[in-house]
Amino acid sequence: MNLKEKFRHVMDFPKEGIDFIDITTVLQDKDAFKYAMDSLIEKIKDKDFDIIVGPESRGFIVGAPIAYALNKGFVPIRKKGKLPYKTIQVEYELEYGVDVLEIHEDAIKSGQKVVIVDDLLATGGTTISNIKLVEQLGGIVTDIVYLVELEFLKGREKLKNYNVHSVVKF
Amino acid sequence: MNLKEKFRHVMDFPKEGIDFIDITTVLQDKDAFKYAMDSLIEKIKDKDFDIIVGPESRGFIVGAPIAYALNKGFVPIRKKGKLPYKTIQVEYELEYGVDVLEIHEDAIKSGQKVVIVDDLLATGGTTISNIKLVEQLGGIVTDIVYLVELEFLKGREKLKNYNVHSVVKF
Repeated sequence: MNLKEKFRHVMDFPKEGIDFIDITTVLQDKDAFKYAMDSLIEKIKDKDFDIIVGPESRGFIVGAPIAYALNKGFVPIRKKGKLPYKTIQVEYELEYGVDVLEIHEDAIKSGQKVVIVDDLLATGGTTISNIKLVEQLGGIVTDIVYLVELEFLKGREKLKNYNVHSVVKF
Repeated sequence: MNLKEKFRHVMDFPKEGIDFIDITTVLQDKDAFKYAMDSLIEKIKDKDFDIIVGPESRGFIVGAPIAYALNKGFVPIRKKGKLPYKTIQVEYELEYGVDVLEIHEDAIKSGQKVVIVDDLLATGGTTISNIKLVEQLGGIVTDIVYLVELEFLKGREKLKNYNVHSVVKF
């Protein structure tokens, strides 16, 4: 399957000049969705790890099916105020602003091996924040996988100490 | 497995007097997560339907794995301003306020059979909004499945014209 052509480009979202890669056209197409998830699973299925971490909200859509398929737990990273129990926090640099991300303080045990999954690698700012949260809890980030990588934003350079994988590159 | 005891109760979240059912303790436990997803899948695996719809954000975590496992597409319903393409909207009555929900106008084709999946049935307000969006696009809601049902809030009464299933009842 040519998965790349299944993504929709939405110009000027969320602001002028941005060519936004819309994953929903992949998600709603059962064959493209299966192919996308299988491709992500292929990247990590032979790795030794304990748990999948995915950030709100699109990281939930790509992370949870992989966790289920590989019989791992799933840990959500959320925006401030959404997680009900005790959390640790990190400031989160968006491409288009600043926010705070949280993880439950008991979500990961010290020494657990973690794979971070998200829909898209842009500048890498979100992922750096995710790594900080995981590592503050004593987790070891073994791999990071994305459905889409925007190569021209060079996010991979920020993550050069980690094993980074992506399924589709723009 | 006694899945019910795997949920964490967080008192006074998001406001005083609420006994919040925290699903993250189920998600992060690989055996509980698998059991929870398998139990949801069991409810609908023999049904005739085309696509899974799940609302932001926890509906993504429970809906996407089911869509993947049953080889269906997944359609996200999101808060206002998050979906990049053309949408239709509905006002959304939260248990604790009001918000707007959106779905892409081409997410569901007229006549498609839809299963709505969410983590929790409380008053049913969110689900009524989800149904409105699906039906405005011509979709047919065949079943609605929840991981958790708060029976004392009687959300099921609002949904008496639909096939409602839940895995765990509080």
